[in-house]
Amino acid sequence: MDGIHLLGEWYGCPADAPVFTQAEPLRELCVGAAREAGLTVVGERFFQFEPQGVTGTVLLAESHIAIHTWPEAGFVTVDVYVCNYTTDNTAKAEQVFRALERALRPARTRFQAIRRGGRDA
Amino acid sequence: MDGIHLLGEWYGCPADAPVFTQAEPLRELCVGAAREAGLTVVGERFFQFEPQGVTGTVLLAESHIAIHTWPEAGFVTVDVYVCNYTTDNTAKAEQVFRALERALRPARTRFQAIRRGGRDA
Repeated sequence: MDGIHLLGEWYGCPADAPVFTQAEPLRELCVGAAREAGLTVVGERFFQFEPQGVTGTVLLAESHIAIHTWPEAGFVTVDVYVCNYTTDNTAKAEQVFRALERALRPARTRFQAIRRGGRDA
Repeated sequence: MDGIHLLGEWYGCPADAPVFTQAEPLRELCVGAAREAGLTVVGERFFQFEPQGVTGTVLLAESHIAIHTWPEAGFVTVDVYVCNYTTDNTAKAEQVFRALERALRPARTRFQAIRRGGRDA
């Protein structure tokens, strides 16, 4: 069950963008980006913090997307994890990751890509 | 927004355990483990694959838990990610991780712990 997990930390995002502060536009962004990339959405859950901030996940047939925003710090963490069960979904994961990054517009980023699973340990 | 992200791949899990094959017992396990550890659950979403397998996430005030099971392979991937916004939640994340591992009983494991965020890049 080989897979690839992309992890981002995004700094200096525009703190007042609705996609950053409000659950509903962020939900639409994440679900839309997953579908646009050809991934299969099987569920989602987004939570609005008060006075600000969002935490959310999109469940995929291929695994998941998770995102957390901290508007007071202009900071986001993003996870895009896909397994490559019947086909290599790496390019789709990268497409989702780039779409989210374009929308949230970080000034500075950190990025890690981690292999998950693979042959039986 | 320093945080710690625990990633597990678990092999050789008993493939017929309900907590492994069915969404509802796995949901109860994950939500219960989070609350038991003193983390704050703000939402959850679990999806049952047919004929088998579960994908699910628990949204936390402190970030998230994500879990995917592949009963046909006796395989699980687990993520427990907590931010340390006002207090160090590392011990709570480790407690959740161990509780899930005890319940899913892998024969072999791989483990990574990754620091997220930290000082502005």
